[in-house]
Amino acid sequence: MKSAGEYAALVEQALPRQLSGLGHMPERLKEAMAYSLEAGGKRLRPVLLLAVCDAMGTDLSSVMPYACALEMIHTYSLIHDDLPAMDNDNLRRGKPTNHVVFGEGMAILAGDGLLHGAMELMLRTACKTDSLQGLRAAEAIARRAGVTGMVAGQVMDVTQEGGQVTEEKVTYIHAHKTADMLIAPLEAGLILSGAEQEEIEAGISYGYHLGMAFQMVDDLLDVIGDEQVMGKQTGMDAQQGKMTWVALKGIHGTKQDAAEHIRLACDAANHFDQGVKFFQELAKNTLNRVQ
Amino acid sequence: MKSAGEYAALVEQALPRQLSGLGHMPERLKEAMAYSLEAGGKRLRPVLLLAVCDAMGTDLSSVMPYACALEMIHTYSLIHDDLPAMDNDNLRRGKPTNHVVFGEGMAILAGDGLLHGAMELMLRTACKTDSLQGLRAAEAIARRAGVTGMVAGQVMDVTQEGGQVTEEKVTYIHAHKTADMLIAPLEAGLILSGAEQEEIEAGISYGYHLGMAFQMVDDLLDVIGDEQVMGKQTGMDAQQGKMTWVALKGIHGTKQDAAEHIRLACDAANHFDQGVKFFQELAKNTLNRVQ
Repeated sequence: MKSAGEYAALVEQALPRQLSGLGHMPERLKEAMAYSLEAGGKRLRPVLLLAVCDAMGTDLSSVMPYACALEMIHTYSLIHDDLPAMDNDNLRRGKPTNHVVFGEGMAILAGDGLLHGAMELMLRTACKTDSLQGLRAAEAIARRAGVTGMVAGQVMDVTQEGGQVTEEKVTYIHAHKTADMLIAPLEAGLILSGAEQEEIEAGISYGYHLGMAFQMVDDLLDVIGDEQVMGKQTGMDAQQGKMTWVALKGIHGTKQDAAEHIRLACDAANHFDQGVKFFQELAKNTLNRVQ
Repeated sequence: MKSAGEYAALVEQALPRQLSGLGHMPERLKEAMAYSLEAGGKRLRPVLLLAVCDAMGTDLSSVMPYACALEMIHTYSLIHDDLPAMDNDNLRRGKPTNHVVFGEGMAILAGDGLLHGAMELMLRTACKTDSLQGLRAAEAIARRAGVTGMVAGQVMDVTQEGGQVTEEKVTYIHAHKTADMLIAPLEAGLILSGAEQEEIEAGISYGYHLGMAFQMVDDLLDVIGDEQVMGKQTGMDAQQGKMTWVALKGIHGTKQDAAEHIRLACDAANHFDQGVKFFQELAKNTLNRVQ
Protein backbone atom coordinates (compact mmCIF):
# COMPACT_ATOMS: atom_id res chain seq x y z
CA MET A 1 0.00 0.00 0.00
CA LYS A 2 1.07 3.55 -0.82
CA SER A 3 0.09 6.74 1.05
CA ALA A 4 -2.97 8.81 0.05
CA GLY A 5 -0.58 11.45 -1.29
CA GLU A 6 1.18 8.87 -3.48
CA TYR A 7 -2.09 7.64 -4.96
CA ALA A 8 -3.12 11.27 -5.53
CA ALA A 9 0.17 11.91 -7.37
CA LEU A 10 -0.60 8.98 -9.70
CA VAL A 11 -4.01 10.51 -10.39
CA GLU A 12 -2.45 13.94 -11.10
CA GLN A 13 -0.17 12.34 -13.67
CA ALA A 14 -2.96 10.34 -15.28
CA LEU A 15 -5.66 13.03 -15.56
CA PRO A 16 -4.21 15.09 -18.46
CA ARG A 17 -3.38 11.89 -20.35
CA GLN A 18 -6.86 10.46 -19.87
CA LEU A 19 -8.44 13.75 -20.92
CA SER A 20 -6.35 13.96 -24.10
CA GLY A 21 -7.02 10.28 -24.77
CA LEU A 22 -10.67 11.10 -25.35
CA GLY A 23 -9.64 12.35 -28.79
CA HIS A 24 -9.71 15.57 -30.74
CA MET A 25 -12.05 18.12 -29.23
CA PRO A 26 -12.41 21.92 -29.66
CA GLU A 27 -9.44 23.67 -27.99
CA ARG A 28 -11.63 25.99 -25.90
CA LEU A 29 -13.64 23.05 -24.53
CA LYS A 30 -10.53 21.10 -23.59
CA GLU A 31 -9.07 24.19 -21.94
CA ALA A 32 -12.21 24.77 -19.86
CA MET A 33 -12.43 21.11 -18.85
CA ALA A 34 -8.72 20.94 -17.96
CA TYR A 35 -8.88 24.21 -15.98
CA SER A 36 -11.20 22.71 -13.38
CA LEU A 37 -9.99 19.12 -13.64
CA GLU A 38 -6.38 20.09 -12.99
CA ALA A 39 -7.14 22.59 -10.21
CA GLY A 40 -5.83 20.20 -7.59
CA GLY A 41 -7.64 19.04 -4.48
CA LYS A 42 -7.09 15.83 -2.54
CA ARG A 43 -8.41 13.58 -5.35
CA LEU A 44 -10.23 11.69 -2.61
CA ARG A 45 -12.56 9.73 -4.90
CA PRO A 46 -9.92 8.31 -7.26
CA VAL A 47 -7.57 7.76 -4.30
CA LEU A 48 -10.22 5.60 -2.62
CA LEU A 49 -10.65 3.53 -5.79
CA LEU A 50 -6.91 3.05 -6.30
CA ALA A 51 -6.36 2.20 -2.64
CA VAL A 52 -9.08 -0.42 -2.44
CA CYS A 53 -7.86 -1.99 -5.70
CA ASP A 54 -4.29 -1.98 -4.35
CA ALA A 55 -5.48 -3.61 -1.12
CA MET A 56 -7.07 -6.36 -3.22
CA GLY A 57 -3.90 -6.84 -5.31
CA THR A 58 -5.41 -5.41 -8.52
CA ASP A 59 -3.12 -3.81 -11.14
CA LEU A 60 -3.52 -0.04 -10.74
CA SER A 61 -2.91 0.96 -14.36
CA SER A 62 -5.87 -1.15 -15.51
CA VAL A 63 -8.27 0.69 -13.18
CA MET A 64 -6.89 4.22 -13.67
CA PRO A 65 -9.56 5.22 -16.27
CA TYR A 66 -12.29 4.45 -13.69
CA ALA A 67 -10.39 6.47 -11.04
CA CYS A 68 -10.08 9.43 -13.41
CA ALA A 69 -13.73 9.10 -14.43
CA LEU A 70 -14.72 9.58 -10.77
CA GLU A 71 -12.67 12.79 -10.59
CA MET A 72 -14.24 14.00 -13.85
CA ILE A 73 -17.75 13.43 -12.50
CA HIS A 74 -16.87 15.14 -9.20
CA THR A 75 -15.38 18.09 -11.11
CA TYR A 76 -18.39 18.45 -13.43
CA SER A 77 -20.68 18.55 -10.40
CA LEU A 78 -18.58 21.35 -8.86
CA ILE A 79 -18.60 23.41 -12.08
CA HIS A 80 -22.39 23.21 -12.40
CA ASP A 81 -22.85 23.70 -8.65
CA ASP A 82 -20.81 26.94 -8.73
CA LEU A 83 -22.89 28.50 -11.56
CA PRO A 84 -24.76 31.76 -10.85
CA ALA A 85 -28.09 29.92 -11.22
CA MET A 86 -27.00 27.46 -8.50
CA ASP A 87 -24.63 28.36 -5.60
CA ASN A 88 -23.11 31.35 -7.41
CA ASP A 89 -19.56 30.80 -6.11
CA ASN A 90 -16.70 32.85 -7.54
CA LEU A 91 -13.86 30.99 -5.86
CA ARG A 92 -12.99 27.28 -5.70
CA ARG A 93 -9.72 25.83 -4.39
CA GLY A 94 -8.32 29.36 -4.35
CA LYS A 95 -8.98 29.95 -8.06
CA PRO A 96 -11.78 31.79 -9.89
CA THR A 97 -14.56 29.32 -10.73
CA ASN A 98 -15.01 27.99 -14.26
CA HIS A 99 -17.80 30.36 -15.34
CA VAL A 100 -15.84 33.37 -14.05
CA VAL A 101 -12.97 32.46 -16.41
CA PHE A 102 -14.78 30.92 -19.40
CA GLY A 103 -18.29 32.38 -19.18
CA GLU A 104 -21.49 30.64 -18.16
CA GLY A 105 -22.24 28.98 -21.50
CA MET A 106 -18.82 27.36 -21.75
CA ALA A 107 -18.90 26.36 -18.06
CA ILE A 108 -22.18 24.50 -18.63
CA LEU A 109 -20.63 22.76 -21.66
CA ALA A 110 -17.36 22.01 -19.82
CA GLY A 111 -19.38 20.34 -17.07
CA ASP A 112 -21.42 18.38 -19.62
CA GLY A 113 -18.16 17.45 -21.37
CA LEU A 114 -16.59 16.09 -18.20
CA LEU A 115 -19.64 13.94 -17.47
CA HIS A 116 -19.67 12.66 -21.05
CA GLY A 117 -15.91 12.13 -20.89
CA ALA A 118 -16.14 10.12 -17.69
CA MET A 119 -18.72 7.76 -19.14
CA GLU A 120 -16.87 7.38 -22.42
CA LEU A 121 -13.59 6.64 -20.64
CA MET A 122 -15.13 3.84 -18.58
CA LEU A 123 -17.09 2.32 -21.46
CA ARG A 124 -14.15 2.42 -23.85
CA THR A 125 -11.91 0.75 -21.27
CA ALA A 126 -14.47 -1.98 -20.58
CA CYS A 127 -14.98 -2.51 -24.35
CA LYS A 128 -11.26 -2.85 -25.06
CA THR A 129 -10.96 -5.84 -22.74
CA ASP A 130 -14.50 -7.22 -23.16
CA SER A 131 -14.80 -6.76 -19.41
CA LEU A 132 -18.12 -7.48 -17.71
CA GLN A 133 -16.49 -6.36 -14.45
CA GLY A 134 -15.71 -3.05 -16.15
CA LEU A 135 -19.34 -2.80 -17.27
CA ARG A 136 -20.55 -3.45 -13.70
CA ALA A 137 -18.13 -0.93 -12.22
CA ALA A 138 -19.29 1.71 -14.72
CA GLU A 139 -22.90 0.90 -13.84
CA ALA A 140 -22.19 1.33 -10.12
CA ILE A 141 -20.50 4.70 -10.69
CA ALA A 142 -23.30 5.87 -13.02
CA ARG A 143 -25.94 4.81 -10.47
CA ARG A 144 -24.24 6.48 -7.47
CA ALA A 145 -23.69 9.68 -9.45
CA GLY A 146 -27.13 9.75 -11.07
CA VAL A 147 -30.71 10.82 -10.44
CA THR A 148 -31.15 8.55 -7.42
CA GLY A 149 -27.65 9.42 -6.16
CA MET A 150 -25.52 12.55 -6.32
CA VAL A 151 -27.91 14.49 -8.58
CA ALA A 152 -30.84 13.70 -6.24
CA GLY A 153 -28.84 15.12 -3.31
CA GLN A 154 -27.91 18.17 -5.33
CA VAL A 155 -31.54 18.82 -6.27
CA MET A 156 -32.71 18.56 -2.65
CA ASP A 157 -29.84 20.80 -1.56
CA VAL A 158 -30.96 23.49 -4.03
CA THR A 159 -34.73 23.16 -3.59
CA GLN A 160 -34.72 22.95 0.22
CA GLU A 161 -32.74 26.18 0.70
CA GLY A 162 -34.40 28.30 3.38
CA GLY A 163 -36.80 25.50 4.35
CA GLN A 164 -37.18 23.96 7.81
CA VAL A 165 -34.14 21.87 8.74
CA THR A 166 -35.01 18.29 9.69
CA GLU A 167 -32.71 15.33 10.34
CA GLU A 168 -34.46 13.36 7.59
CA LYS A 169 -33.82 16.05 4.97
CA VAL A 170 -30.20 16.75 5.94
CA THR A 171 -29.44 13.02 6.07
CA TYR A 172 -30.92 12.59 2.56
CA ILE A 173 -28.86 15.47 1.18
CA HIS A 174 -25.59 14.34 2.82
CA ALA A 175 -26.15 10.69 1.90
CA HIS A 176 -26.76 11.44 -1.77
CA LYS A 177 -24.92 14.67 -2.53
CA THR A 178 -21.73 13.59 -0.76
CA ALA A 179 -21.69 9.98 0.48
CA ASP A 180 -22.85 8.35 -2.78
CA MET A 181 -19.76 9.63 -4.57
CA LEU A 182 -17.55 8.22 -1.80
CA ILE A 183 -19.39 4.90 -1.93
CA ALA A 184 -18.88 4.76 -5.71
CA PRO A 185 -15.06 4.32 -5.65
CA LEU A 186 -15.27 1.56 -3.05
CA GLU A 187 -18.10 -0.27 -4.80
CA ALA A 188 -16.55 0.08 -8.27
CA GLY A 189 -13.00 -0.71 -7.07
CA LEU A 190 -14.18 -3.88 -5.33
CA ILE A 191 -16.19 -4.96 -8.39
CA LEU A 192 -13.12 -4.38 -10.61
CA SER A 193 -11.10 -6.50 -8.16
CA GLY A 194 -13.57 -9.39 -8.31
CA ALA A 195 -14.46 -9.04 -4.60
CA GLU A 196 -17.14 -11.09 -2.83
CA GLN A 197 -20.55 -9.53 -2.13
CA GLU A 198 -19.72 -9.31 1.60
CA GLU A 199 -16.61 -7.23 0.88
CA ILE A 200 -18.58 -5.00 -1.47
CA GLU A 201 -21.15 -4.42 1.29
CA ALA A 202 -18.34 -3.44 3.68
CA GLY A 203 -17.01 -1.03 1.05
CA ILE A 204 -20.44 0.56 0.67
CA SER A 205 -20.69 0.91 4.46
CA TYR A 206 -17.21 2.50 4.68
CA GLY A 207 -17.99 4.97 1.88
CA TYR A 208 -21.34 5.88 3.45
CA HIS A 209 -19.98 6.64 6.91
CA LEU A 210 -16.88 8.40 5.57
CA GLY A 211 -19.13 10.49 3.34
CA MET A 212 -21.51 11.48 6.14
CA ALA A 213 -18.60 12.47 8.39
CA PHE A 214 -16.89 14.25 5.50
CA GLN A 215 -19.92 16.43 4.81
CA MET A 216 -20.40 17.18 8.52
CA VAL A 217 -16.78 18.34 8.68
CA ASP A 218 -17.36 20.42 5.55
CA ASP A 219 -20.41 22.02 7.17
CA LEU A 220 -18.31 22.74 10.29
CA LEU A 221 -15.49 24.29 8.25
CA ASP A 222 -17.95 26.65 6.56
CA VAL A 223 -18.65 27.97 10.07
CA ILE A 224 -15.29 27.76 11.85
CA GLY A 225 -12.83 27.46 8.91
CA ASP A 226 -10.27 29.95 7.61
CA GLU A 227 -11.00 31.34 4.12
CA GLN A 228 -7.28 31.57 3.33
CA VAL A 229 -6.68 27.92 4.16
CA MET A 230 -9.90 26.71 2.51
CA GLY A 231 -9.43 28.65 -0.74
CA LYS A 232 -13.12 29.56 -0.84
CA GLN A 233 -15.58 31.87 0.84
CA THR A 234 -16.87 30.68 4.22
CA GLY A 235 -20.15 31.46 5.95
CA MET A 236 -22.03 30.84 2.70
CA ASP A 237 -24.22 27.99 4.02
CA ALA A 238 -25.90 30.11 6.69
CA GLN A 239 -26.24 33.02 4.25
CA GLN A 240 -27.99 30.81 1.70
CA GLY A 241 -30.11 28.98 4.27
CA LYS A 242 -28.55 25.61 3.41
CA MET A 243 -29.58 22.38 5.12
CA THR A 244 -26.44 21.59 7.13
CA TRP A 245 -25.71 19.30 10.04
CA VAL A 246 -24.49 22.33 12.01
CA ALA A 247 -27.88 24.03 11.52
CA LEU A 248 -29.46 20.85 12.89
CA LYS A 249 -27.16 19.90 15.78
CA GLY A 250 -24.83 22.82 16.42
CA ILE A 251 -21.02 22.68 16.39
CA HIS A 252 -20.56 20.30 19.31
CA GLY A 253 -23.32 17.89 18.25
CA THR A 254 -21.97 17.81 14.69
CA LYS A 255 -18.47 16.93 15.94
CA GLN A 256 -19.93 14.09 18.01
CA ASP A 257 -21.98 12.69 15.13
CA ALA A 258 -19.04 12.92 12.73
CA ALA A 259 -16.86 11.01 15.21
CA GLU A 260 -19.49 8.27 15.45
CA HIS A 261 -19.61 7.91 11.63
CA ILE A 262 -15.80 7.69 11.57
CA ARG A 263 -15.96 4.93 14.19
CA LEU A 264 -18.41 2.98 11.99
CA ALA A 265 -16.24 3.58 8.90
CA CYS A 266 -13.25 2.14 10.79
CA ASP A 267 -15.31 -0.93 11.71
CA ALA A 268 -16.18 -1.50 8.05
CA ALA A 269 -12.51 -1.05 7.04
CA ASN A 270 -11.63 -4.23 8.97
CA HIS A 271 -12.75 -6.16 5.85
CA PHE A 272 -10.11 -4.56 3.58
CA ASP A 273 -7.23 -7.08 3.80
CA GLN A 274 -3.98 -5.16 3.22
CA GLY A 275 -5.89 -1.89 3.41
CA VAL A 276 -7.20 -1.87 6.99
CA LYS A 277 -4.64 0.61 8.32
CA PHE A 278 -4.81 2.89 5.25
CA PHE A 279 -8.58 3.20 5.32
CA GLN A 280 -8.79 3.65 9.10
CA GLU A 281 -6.15 6.38 9.02
CA LEU A 282 -7.82 8.14 6.11
CA ALA A 283 -11.12 8.15 8.01
CA LYS A 284 -9.51 9.50 11.18
CA ASN A 285 -7.71 12.24 9.24
CA THR A 286 -11.07 13.50 8.03
CA LEU A 287 -11.94 14.37 11.62
CA ASN A 288 -8.57 15.99 12.29
CA ARG A 289 -9.47 18.89 10.01
CA VAL A 290 -11.80 20.23 12.71
CA GLN A 291 -9.93 19.22 15.87
CA MET B 1 -41.50 -3.20 -40.52
CA LYS B 2 -43.79 -0.62 -38.97
CA SER B 3 -44.18 3.04 -39.96
CA ALA B 4 -42.08 5.80 -38.35
CA GLY B 5 -45.23 6.95 -36.55
CA GLU B 6 -45.78 3.46 -35.12
CA TYR B 7 -42.21 3.25 -33.81
CA ALA B 8 -42.61 6.75 -32.35
CA ALA B 9 -45.80 5.64 -30.58
CA LEU B 10 -43.88 2.75 -28.98
CA VAL B 11 -41.27 5.24 -27.77
CA GLU B 12 -43.97 7.55 -26.33
CA GLN B 13 -45.35 4.63 -24.35
CA ALA B 14 -41.94 3.53 -23.12
CA LEU B 15 -40.45 6.90 -22.09
CA PRO B 16 -42.42 7.51 -18.84
CA ARG B 17 -41.90 3.87 -17.82
CA GLN B 18 -38.14 4.02 -18.45
CA LEU B 19 -37.89 7.32 -16.57
CA SER B 20 -39.75 5.95 -13.55
CA GLY B 21 -37.72 2.76 -13.73
CA LEU B 22 -34.62 4.73 -12.80
CA GLY B 23 -35.88 4.63 -9.23
CA HIS B 24 -36.95 7.07 -6.56
CA MET B 25 -35.82 10.61 -7.29
CA PRO B 26 -36.90 14.04 -5.96
CA GLU B 27 -40.38 14.89 -7.29
CA ARG B 28 -39.36 18.29 -8.68
CA LEU B 29 -36.44 16.76 -10.60
CA LYS B 30 -38.62 14.05 -12.11
CA GLU B 31 -41.23 16.65 -13.06
CA ALA B 32 -38.63 18.86 -14.78
CA MET B 33 -37.08 15.90 -16.63
CA ALA B 34 -40.49 14.56 -17.71
CA TYR B 35 -41.67 18.02 -18.84
CA SER B 36 -39.09 18.17 -21.62
CA LEU B 37 -38.83 14.44 -22.28
CA GLU B 38 -42.57 14.11 -22.82
CA ALA B 39 -42.95 17.28 -24.91
CA GLY B 40 -43.39 15.28 -28.09
CA GLY B 41 -41.45 15.64 -31.31
CA LYS B 42 -40.84 13.04 -33.98
CA ARG B 43 -38.60 10.89 -31.74
CA LEU B 44 -36.33 10.51 -34.74
CA ARG B 45 -33.31 9.10 -32.88
CA PRO B 46 -35.11 6.27 -31.06
CA VAL B 47 -37.23 5.59 -34.17
CA LEU B 48 -34.04 5.06 -36.19
CA LEU B 49 -32.70 2.61 -33.59
CA LEU B 50 -35.96 0.65 -33.38
CA ALA B 51 -36.33 0.56 -37.17
CA VAL B 52 -32.82 -0.71 -37.85
CA CYS B 53 -33.20 -3.36 -35.13
CA ASP B 54 -36.56 -4.38 -36.59
CA ALA B 55 -35.02 -4.61 -40.07
CA MET B 56 -32.41 -6.98 -38.61
CA GLY B 57 -35.04 -9.09 -36.84
CA THR B 58 -34.04 -8.02 -33.32
CA ASP B 59 -36.63 -8.09 -30.53
CA LEU B 60 -37.71 -4.46 -29.98
CA SER B 61 -38.48 -4.67 -26.27
CA SER B 62 -34.89 -5.70 -25.52
CA VAL B 63 -33.48 -2.59 -27.21
CA MET B 64 -36.07 -0.07 -25.96
CA PRO B 65 -33.84 1.21 -23.08
CA TYR B 66 -31.16 2.17 -25.63
CA ALA B 67 -33.79 3.89 -27.81
CA CYS B 68 -35.10 5.86 -24.82
CA ALA B 69 -31.55 6.71 -23.72
CA LEU B 70 -30.99 8.37 -27.12
CA GLU B 71 -34.09 10.52 -26.63
CA MET B 72 -32.97 11.43 -23.10
CA ILE B 73 -29.56 12.57 -24.38
CA HIS B 74 -31.18 14.54 -27.20
CA THR B 75 -33.58 16.16 -24.73
CA TYR B 76 -30.83 17.06 -22.24
CA SER B 77 -28.91 18.75 -25.06
CA LEU B 78 -31.98 20.83 -25.97
CA ILE B 79 -32.57 21.91 -22.35
CA HIS B 80 -28.99 23.10 -21.91
CA ASP B 81 -28.93 24.60 -25.41
CA ASP B 82 -32.03 26.69 -24.64
CA LEU B 83 -30.57 28.21 -21.43
CA PRO B 84 -30.10 32.00 -21.25
CA ALA B 85 -26.30 31.53 -21.17
CA MET B 86 -26.53 29.57 -24.44
CA ASP B 87 -29.18 30.17 -27.15
CA ASN B 88 -31.65 31.83 -24.76
CA ASP B 89 -34.78 30.30 -26.32
CA ASN B 90 -38.11 30.71 -24.58
CA LEU B 91 -40.13 28.39 -26.79
CA ARG B 92 -39.54 24.79 -27.88
CA ARG B 93 -42.06 22.55 -29.65
CA GLY B 94 -44.71 25.20 -28.92
CA LYS B 95 -44.14 25.06 -25.15
CA PRO B 96 -42.17 27.33 -22.81
CA THR B 97 -38.61 25.99 -22.46
CA ASN B 98 -37.53 24.12 -19.33
CA HIS B 99 -35.81 27.04 -17.56
CA VAL B 100 -38.82 29.29 -18.19
CA VAL B 101 -41.00 26.83 -16.27
CA PHE B 102 -38.60 25.42 -13.65
CA GLY B 103 -35.91 28.12 -13.34
CA GLU B 104 -32.35 28.02 -14.58
CA GLY B 105 -30.86 26.02 -11.71
CA MET B 106 -33.40 23.23 -12.02
CA ALA B 107 -33.13 23.23 -15.83
CA ILE B 108 -29.38 22.67 -15.57
CA LEU B 109 -30.00 19.81 -13.12
CA ALA B 110 -32.83 18.34 -15.23
CA GLY B 111 -30.44 18.28 -18.20
CA ASP B 112 -27.71 16.68 -16.11
CA GLY B 113 -30.28 14.21 -14.79
CA LEU B 114 -31.37 13.15 -18.27
CA LEU B 115 -27.77 12.54 -19.34
CA HIS B 116 -27.08 10.56 -16.18
CA GLY B 117 -30.37 8.69 -16.63
CA ALA B 118 -29.55 7.75 -20.22
CA MET B 119 -26.20 6.27 -19.25
CA GLU B 120 -27.62 4.46 -16.24
CA LEU B 121 -30.45 2.98 -18.30
CA MET B 122 -28.09 1.54 -20.90
CA LEU B 123 -25.55 0.23 -18.39
CA ARG B 124 -28.19 -1.34 -16.19
CA THR B 125 -29.76 -3.07 -19.18
CA ALA B 126 -26.39 -4.39 -20.38
CA CYS B 127 -25.54 -5.56 -16.82
CA LYS B 128 -28.83 -7.44 -16.40
CA THR B 129 -28.07 -9.68 -19.36
CA ASP B 130 -24.23 -9.67 -19.10
CA SER B 131 -24.33 -8.26 -22.62
CA LEU B 132 -21.06 -7.25 -24.29
CA GLN B 133 -23.16 -6.09 -27.27
CA GLY B 134 -25.05 -3.82 -24.86
CA LEU B 135 -21.74 -2.48 -23.55
CA ARG B 136 -20.53 -1.77 -27.10
CA ALA B 137 -23.80 -0.09 -28.05
CA ALA B 138 -23.61 2.13 -24.94
CA GLU B 139 -19.99 2.98 -25.82
CA ALA B 140 -21.00 3.98 -29.36
CA ILE B 141 -23.80 6.22 -28.09
CA ALA B 142 -21.55 7.77 -25.41
CA ARG B 143 -18.83 8.44 -28.01
CA ARG B 144 -21.18 9.98 -30.60
CA ALA B 145 -22.81 12.19 -27.94
CA GLY B 146 -19.58 13.16 -26.19
CA VAL B 147 -16.70 15.62 -26.38
CA THR B 148 -15.58 14.47 -29.82
CA GLY B 149 -19.20 14.24 -31.01
CA MET B 150 -22.36 16.19 -30.20
CA VAL B 151 -20.77 18.29 -27.44
CA ALA B 152 -17.87 19.24 -29.76
CA GLY B 153 -20.40 20.45 -32.34
CA GLN B 154 -22.32 22.35 -29.72
CA VAL B 155 -19.17 24.09 -28.47
CA MET B 156 -18.16 25.13 -31.99
CA ASP B 157 -21.72 26.32 -32.64
CA VAL B 158 -21.58 28.57 -29.57
CA THR B 159 -17.99 29.82 -29.89
CA GLN B 160 -18.12 30.52 -33.63
CA GLU B 161 -21.20 32.77 -33.41
CA GLY B 162 -20.58 35.93 -35.41
CA GLY B 163 -17.36 34.57 -36.92
CA GLN B 164 -16.58 34.18 -40.62
CA VAL B 165 -18.64 31.37 -42.17
CA THR B 166 -16.52 28.73 -43.92
CA GLU B 167 -17.55 25.38 -45.37
CA GLU B 168 -15.05 23.61 -43.08
CA LYS B 169 -16.53 25.14 -39.92
CA VAL B 170 -20.20 24.63 -40.88
CA THR B 171 -19.49 21.05 -41.93
CA TYR B 172 -17.78 20.38 -38.56
CA ILE B 173 -20.71 21.85 -36.62
CA HIS B 174 -23.38 20.00 -38.63
CA ALA B 175 -21.44 16.71 -38.60
CA HIS B 176 -21.00 16.75 -34.83
CA LYS B 177 -23.89 18.75 -33.41
CA THR B 178 -26.50 17.01 -35.54
CA ALA B 179 -25.24 14.06 -37.59
CA ASP B 180 -23.39 12.27 -34.77
CA MET B 181 -26.66 11.81 -32.88
CA LEU B 182 -28.30 10.37 -36.01
CA ILE B 183 -25.32 8.08 -36.60
CA ALA B 184 -25.56 6.85 -32.97
CA PRO B 185 -28.93 5.03 -33.31
CA LEU B 186 -27.82 3.26 -36.50
CA GLU B 187 -24.42 2.27 -35.09
CA ALA B 188 -25.84 1.18 -31.72
CA GLY B 189 -28.85 -0.59 -33.23
CA LEU B 190 -26.68 -2.56 -35.63
CA ILE B 191 -24.25 -3.51 -32.82
CA LEU B 192 -27.20 -4.67 -30.69
CA SER B 193 -28.38 -6.75 -33.66
CA GLY B 194 -25.00 -8.43 -34.10
CA ALA B 195 -24.50 -6.90 -37.56
CA GLU B 196 -21.33 -7.30 -39.65
CA GLN B 197 -18.81 -4.44 -39.79
CA GLU B 198 -19.85 -3.66 -43.38
CA GLU B 199 -23.47 -3.16 -42.35
CA ILE B 200 -22.37 -0.97 -39.43
CA GLU B 201 -20.34 1.17 -41.85
CA ALA B 202 -23.42 1.55 -44.08
CA GLY B 203 -25.44 2.57 -41.00
CA ILE B 204 -22.85 5.21 -40.10
CA SER B 205 -22.94 6.51 -43.67
CA TYR B 206 -26.76 6.66 -43.67
CA GLY B 207 -26.82 8.51 -40.33
CA TYR B 208 -24.17 10.95 -41.47
CA HIS B 209 -25.88 11.95 -44.72
CA LEU B 210 -29.34 12.03 -43.14
CA GLY B 211 -27.93 14.22 -40.37
CA MET B 212 -26.23 16.67 -42.73
CA ALA B 213 -29.42 17.00 -44.81
CA PHE B 214 -31.54 17.24 -41.67
CA GLN B 215 -29.52 20.19 -40.34
CA MET B 216 -29.55 21.91 -43.73
CA VAL B 217 -33.34 21.63 -43.77
CA ASP B 218 -33.44 22.95 -40.21
CA ASP B 219 -31.31 25.93 -41.26
CA LEU B 220 -33.68 26.52 -44.20
CA LEU B 221 -36.77 26.35 -42.01
CA ASP B 222 -35.31 28.99 -39.69
CA VAL B 223 -35.34 31.29 -42.73
CA ILE B 224 -38.45 30.24 -44.67
CA GLY B 225 -40.48 28.34 -42.02
CA ASP B 226 -43.71 29.28 -40.26
CA GLU B 227 -43.39 29.96 -36.51
CA GLN B 228 -46.88 28.56 -35.87
CA VAL B 229 -46.12 25.28 -37.59
CA MET B 230 -42.59 25.01 -36.11
CA GLY B 231 -43.59 25.79 -32.51
CA LYS B 232 -40.52 27.97 -32.02
CA GLN B 233 -39.21 31.39 -33.00
CA THR B 234 -37.74 31.62 -36.50
CA GLY B 235 -35.08 33.98 -37.85
CA MET B 236 -32.95 33.37 -34.75
CA ASP B 237 -29.91 31.97 -36.60
CA ALA B 238 -29.28 35.13 -38.61
CA GLN B 239 -29.96 37.27 -35.54
CA GLN B 240 -27.37 35.35 -33.49
CA GLY B 241 -24.85 35.15 -36.35
CA LYS B 242 -24.97 31.32 -36.39
CA MET B 243 -22.89 29.21 -38.76
CA THR B 244 -25.57 27.82 -41.04
CA TRP B 245 -25.51 26.19 -44.45
CA VAL B 246 -27.87 28.91 -45.70
CA ALA B 247 -25.36 31.60 -44.65
CA LEU B 248 -22.76 29.67 -46.68
CA LYS B 249 -24.69 28.63 -49.81
CA GLY B 250 -27.96 30.52 -49.85
CA ILE B 251 -31.43 28.95 -50.02
CA HIS B 252 -31.10 27.35 -53.44
CA GLY B 253 -27.58 26.00 -52.86
CA THR B 254 -28.62 24.55 -49.49
CA LYS B 255 -31.60 22.74 -51.08
CA GLN B 256 -29.28 21.25 -53.69
CA ASP B 257 -26.70 20.08 -51.15
CA ALA B 258 -29.40 18.62 -48.90
CA ALA B 259 -30.81 16.68 -51.86
CA GLU B 260 -27.34 15.27 -52.62
CA HIS B 261 -26.92 14.08 -49.01
CA ILE B 262 -30.34 12.42 -49.18
CA ARG B 263 -29.29 10.63 -52.38
CA LEU B 264 -26.19 9.30 -50.59
CA ALA B 265 -28.27 8.28 -47.56
CA CYS B 266 -30.59 6.32 -49.86
CA ASP B 267 -27.55 4.56 -51.39
CA ALA B 268 -26.36 3.50 -47.95
CA ALA B 269 -29.86 2.30 -47.03
CA ASN B 270 -29.57 -0.42 -49.69
CA HIS B 271 -27.68 -2.48 -47.08
CA PHE B 272 -30.60 -2.59 -44.64
CA ASP B 273 -32.31 -5.89 -45.58
CA GLN B 274 -36.01 -5.54 -44.73
CA GLY B 275 -35.51 -1.83 -44.04
CA VAL B 276 -34.47 -0.47 -47.45
CA LYS B 277 -37.85 1.09 -48.24
CA PHE B 278 -38.40 2.45 -44.72
CA PHE B 279 -35.03 4.18 -44.54
CA GLN B 280 -35.20 5.57 -48.08
CA GLU B 281 -38.67 7.00 -47.48
CA LEU B 282 -37.64 8.50 -44.16
CA ALA B 283 -34.69 10.21 -45.84
CA LYS B 284 -36.83 11.56 -48.68
CA ASN B 285 -39.45 12.87 -46.23
CA THR B 286 -36.77 14.99 -44.58
CA LEU B 287 -36.45 16.94 -47.80
CA ASN B 288 -40.21 17.26 -48.24
CA ARG B 289 -40.37 19.66 -45.29
CA VAL B 290 -38.86 22.38 -47.47
CA GLN B 291 -40.37 21.54 -50.86
